[in-house]
Amino acid sequence: MSLLITGSVALDSVKTPAEERRDLLGGSASYASVAASFFSAVNLVGIVGTDFPKNYFELYRRHGINLDGLQIAEGKTFRWSGEYEWDLNKRRTLSVCLNVFETFQPNLPHGYRKTPYVFLANISPQLQMHVLAQVERPKLIVADTMDLWIETQREALNELLRKIDCIVLNESEAREFTKQTSLIRAGRLILKQGPKYVVIKKGEHGCLLFADNLFFSAPAYPLEDIRDPTGAGDCFAGAFTGYLAKVNRIDHDSLRKAVVYGSVIASYCVEAFSLDRLETLTSAEIEQRYQLFKLMSHFEVG
Amino acid sequence: MSLLITGSVALDSVKTPAEERRDLLGGSASYASVAASFFSAVNLVGIVGTDFPKNYFELYRRHGINLDGLQIAEGKTFRWSGEYEWDLNKRRTLSVCLNVFETFQPNLPHGYRKTPYVFLANISPQLQMHVLAQVERPKLIVADTMDLWIETQREALNELLRKIDCIVLNESEAREFTKQTSLIRAGRLILKQGPKYVVIKKGEHGCLLFADNLFFSAPAYPLEDIRDPTGAGDCFAGAFTGYLAKVNRIDHDSLRKAVVYGSVIASYCVEAFSLDRLETLTSAEIEQRYQLFKLMSHFEVG
Repeated sequence: MSLLITGSVALDSVKTPAEERRDLLGGSASYASVAASFFSAVNLVGIVGTDFPKNYFELYRRHGINLDGLQIAEGKTFRWSGEYEWDLNKRRTLSVCLNVFETFQPNLPHGYRKTPYVFLANISPQLQMHVLAQVERPKLIVADTMDLWIETQREALNELLRKIDCIVLNESEAREFTKQTSLIRAGRLILKQGPKYVVIKKGEHGCLLFADNLFFSAPAYPLEDIRDPTGAGDCFAGAFTGYLAKVNRIDHDSLRKAVVYGSVIASYCVEAFSLDRLETLTSAEIEQRYQLFKLMSHFEVG
Repeated sequence: MSLLITGSVALDSVKTPAEERRDLLGGSASYASVAASFFSAVNLVGIVGTDFPKNYFELYRRHGINLDGLQIAEGKTFRWSGEYEWDLNKRRTLSVCLNVFETFQPNLPHGYRKTPYVFLANISPQLQMHVLAQVERPKLIVADTMDLWIETQREALNELLRKIDCIVLNESEAREFTKQTSLIRAGRLILKQGPKYVVIKKGEHGCLLFADNLFFSAPAYPLEDIRDPTGAGDCFAGAFTGYLAKVNRIDHDSLRKAVVYGSVIASYCVEAFSLDRLETLTSAEIEQRYQLFKLMSHFEVG
């Protein structure tokens, strides 16, 4: 089944203690789409400027991503730049230039409107709902968000939560959103606000999946060397939704597997800058690391 | 197989935002011994004063704990008091009175010297080595430690690491000991300093087990209400070692199971103050929660 993904498409400049790279392909929709493309056909909805490099269009196309919904507007592409501290756990945004993104109000191409799976990657909840309103009765709607929208668009976010099936957010966002220190309480509280499924991403500690009668805890892959953590969360959510679109089944077994596939793709993403590692990633490598996830969390019955 | 446990025996006063309790049975060896007693016979090595309440001796005896090595000295029992913040994640020590513990230099009873499994619960590495020197060729030696010894007894701790098979320490201690932010690097670095197995406890995030060709990540039980976190780490390590003594096998499968049984007992411990919950805990409840750990970390092959 195909998957519609909307979010930001950006040119990123990223600085880590070891290295600095400029004008990389970035943005939540870029990471999510490439990650999802390992599992399903992707219909991308986004906007870029006339400065958007040709080779990035080609990168999308190599992953079979449908670009009918990628608008090219007069002006410059959205740009983000950030810097990581030595341990890569803390990130500082250095600059954000919305550019063409400022006036983004997408009209979905006709061929996109019946896409059965939808992932609303991180953009404002208003924009996420604007896209959602144009899709006809999808089977599954997954959304991501960020601290900025929790702080400034709380009402819209509450409304979004009632319209989606699954929210994916990180540990600190779950705590901020619910004012709960316990992630268990946080996850269960968010469930009560609308979505059937809540996924809390915990970085090096793995992630948690909550549903009414389901609790699943997935480990993180034990990476010693992370090159660039940018986009890991977007890759997780893109691959998570992409896997569900592939199997076209939203039961507990599929959700658990989707969480693990999401973790696998995210773990590859951070091994290099931008989408560099995913560009060379093979199905065999994905399956191999999935097996390692199985091994490292497996124990016998008592 | 039987298990020798040494560590502190204390009378604790614990304050949480909800409640305050005084003169509770506490200390690393108390928690570890009662936790281990669900799996194996325990030989306790410790010291108490003449003020130690009779009913606490009885509690130990009800758990079949051998008290031949529990010295009763003229004076007062070691006392600790601490306070938890509202989220129970941060603890402040209010007072420590070593009392009879100050001169503790145990001589192992003759019947203890051939105990095949040894758990050195948290006391100074000097004292841990003093006890260890009196045991004849045990099959497995597990030790716990704390930030205080990392900061003040680094040399002794390094020496201890070369004499034991397994070290159990918490997340912040592993980072402090190795000066690494990555727990994966920290775990692997500690492995290089002597022990064959390293267990890093991460509280609400579960725990990690490292060996030369083994990495295992266990989830934490999703408790919404924690009454008193005191002793959870001691219970984990006591039950971990107790389970290994019970099966008398130290292969990867047993180690994984031991980690899960340790997590099960720790999750029960924090449901009440002191050893209150463990006092009424049944084998059926242990097996039931073990199954829940299995359920919440299980996923199908890809």
